[in-house]
Amino acid sequence: MNDVRDEIDPAAIEGLRSRALDLAAEARSLIRQALSRGFTVKRKPDRSYVTSADLLVEQRLRALIQEWFPDHGVLGEEFPPWRPDAPFQWIFDPIDGTEDFVQRVPTFGSIIALHYHGQPLVGVLDHPHLDLCLSATHRRGTFRDGARVQLGDLAESAMDGSERLVLSARANFTRYRDDGSLFDALTRIHPNHRIYRTCYAHALAVIGAADAAVDWGNRVWDLAATRILVEEAGGTYATVQRYTSSGGATIYSAVFGRPALVARLVAELGQRANMPPAG
Amino acid sequence: MNDVRDEIDPAAIEGLRSRALDLAAEARSLIRQALSRGFTVKRKPDRSYVTSADLLVEQRLRALIQEWFPDHGVLGEEFPPWRPDAPFQWIFDPIDGTEDFVQRVPTFGSIIALHYHGQPLVGVLDHPHLDLCLSATHRRGTFRDGARVQLGDLAESAMDGSERLVLSARANFTRYRDDGSLFDALTRIHPNHRIYRTCYAHALAVIGAADAAVDWGNRVWDLAATRILVEEAGGTYATVQRYTSSGGATIYSAVFGRPALVARLVAELGQRANMPPAG
Repeated sequence: MNDVRDEIDPAAIEGLRSRALDLAAEARSLIRQALSRGFTVKRKPDRSYVTSADLLVEQRLRALIQEWFPDHGVLGEEFPPWRPDAPFQWIFDPIDGTEDFVQRVPTFGSIIALHYHGQPLVGVLDHPHLDLCLSATHRRGTFRDGARVQLGDLAESAMDGSERLVLSARANFTRYRDDGSLFDALTRIHPNHRIYRTCYAHALAVIGAADAAVDWGNRVWDLAATRILVEEAGGTYATVQRYTSSGGATIYSAVFGRPALVARLVAELGQRANMPPAG
Repeated sequence: MNDVRDEIDPAAIEGLRSRALDLAAEARSLIRQALSRGFTVKRKPDRSYVTSADLLVEQRLRALIQEWFPDHGVLGEEFPPWRPDAPFQWIFDPIDGTEDFVQRVPTFGSIIALHYHGQPLVGVLDHPHLDLCLSATHRRGTFRDGARVQLGDLAESAMDGSERLVLSARANFTRYRDDGSLFDALTRIHPNHRIYRTCYAHALAVIGAADAAVDWGNRVWDLAATRILVEEAGGTYATVQRYTSSGGATIYSAVFGRPALVARLVAELGQRANMPPAG
């Protein structure tokens, strides 16, 4: 199979991974400073939170990327895209789960990804308060600190209602359009669920502490690191919905984790929703 | 108002709090050892998990209590009650959230309470992996490490759907009898929710990182520390359901947190369920 990412020299990929981890370490350091020294909090028009720490971290990472890779693009939550047509695109969310960050609930984190011609090359999820950092690179595996992450599959017999699912809050299922009935169906079929914010929920599915995750109604930076982290760990990732919101934003919903449960969830969602084609 | 707990000398209460914290420290030490050295895992007939660490911690805490307070009773999850008629009862869950403990999801913790003639005198919630310890004593406040916890109320205008609710998984609402419709109603009315295991969910409501918690279908040791922690922080606690399961166990459901939201939740639940009298 032709994969555009195979054009890039493996040693170069390793260097890019190393830079992505440098960015995560810089974000972690700034986030910890903000937690100890304090930060300001505002609510955006959509009622979501933004803090001085979100802005500071995004500005700092943008500056580092522009210094290290002047011909790469940057796509982040709080500022306009930079070089949107460049083949290499850094896509990140400086603090994912800002509401939890504001409340000092430790599940927030930084999402950092590098895509090449639209395909993920490097993905990092870092949780400064939980000391949990995951990274993946194309054809080189997923790692939790120094240890390779290998995600086993789930036997059919283990999908008896005790399977562990992490999912978005119902608010995510109704934010852009009313998919609340899908939340209701998922929580009924899979009653042993947890609800965390994106970054940590993704991490749980990557390391297998949850069997799968369903994350609904996201922007591109929320999901940019997850596909490669899951796939390089041996799991599967499926975009189950993609559409343009009334505000012009592309909204993604995804299911990922252990292959057998992902397949079952995709089928369950497909039966209940008129899903547009998604890749 | 006559409160049986006022019979006890305040200095004696302080000594009991100190012992409760000693028990939590001992549990924390054993749990951390188990996490680093490993532990065995079994599933009980009800499919819940029990590990060698649960058993070890409970046995150790029982031995310490019997050594320090030979005339006190002990009620724990894994072993039969000790001196069930004694006025002082230590009630604890050595590792609450065992399934998360098994998966090393850091929201598990120890719940330790001392009741006197059925009224809570001391409550402790300790999270060994999050370094988060909460304690409360009768008429002496709730503390997070050395700092007093004061739970403000929520304005009516803030209960607009963005209020933060933590609740049990749907599995808790259907474990003993089918209260699934209550889960469905709560998640619709309060879409900005999280689902964590008991111990950490309670802690979030105690410190105000969540505005309230709804915890459904619990045994006495799950809730034994929470009432005093919430009330001494300035919040309210309501037992909204209490009944005897087909297996003979008393099952409790409770709502607690910021007073205005607790009042609203109690009313919402009351409209939807035929609740037996509860205190």
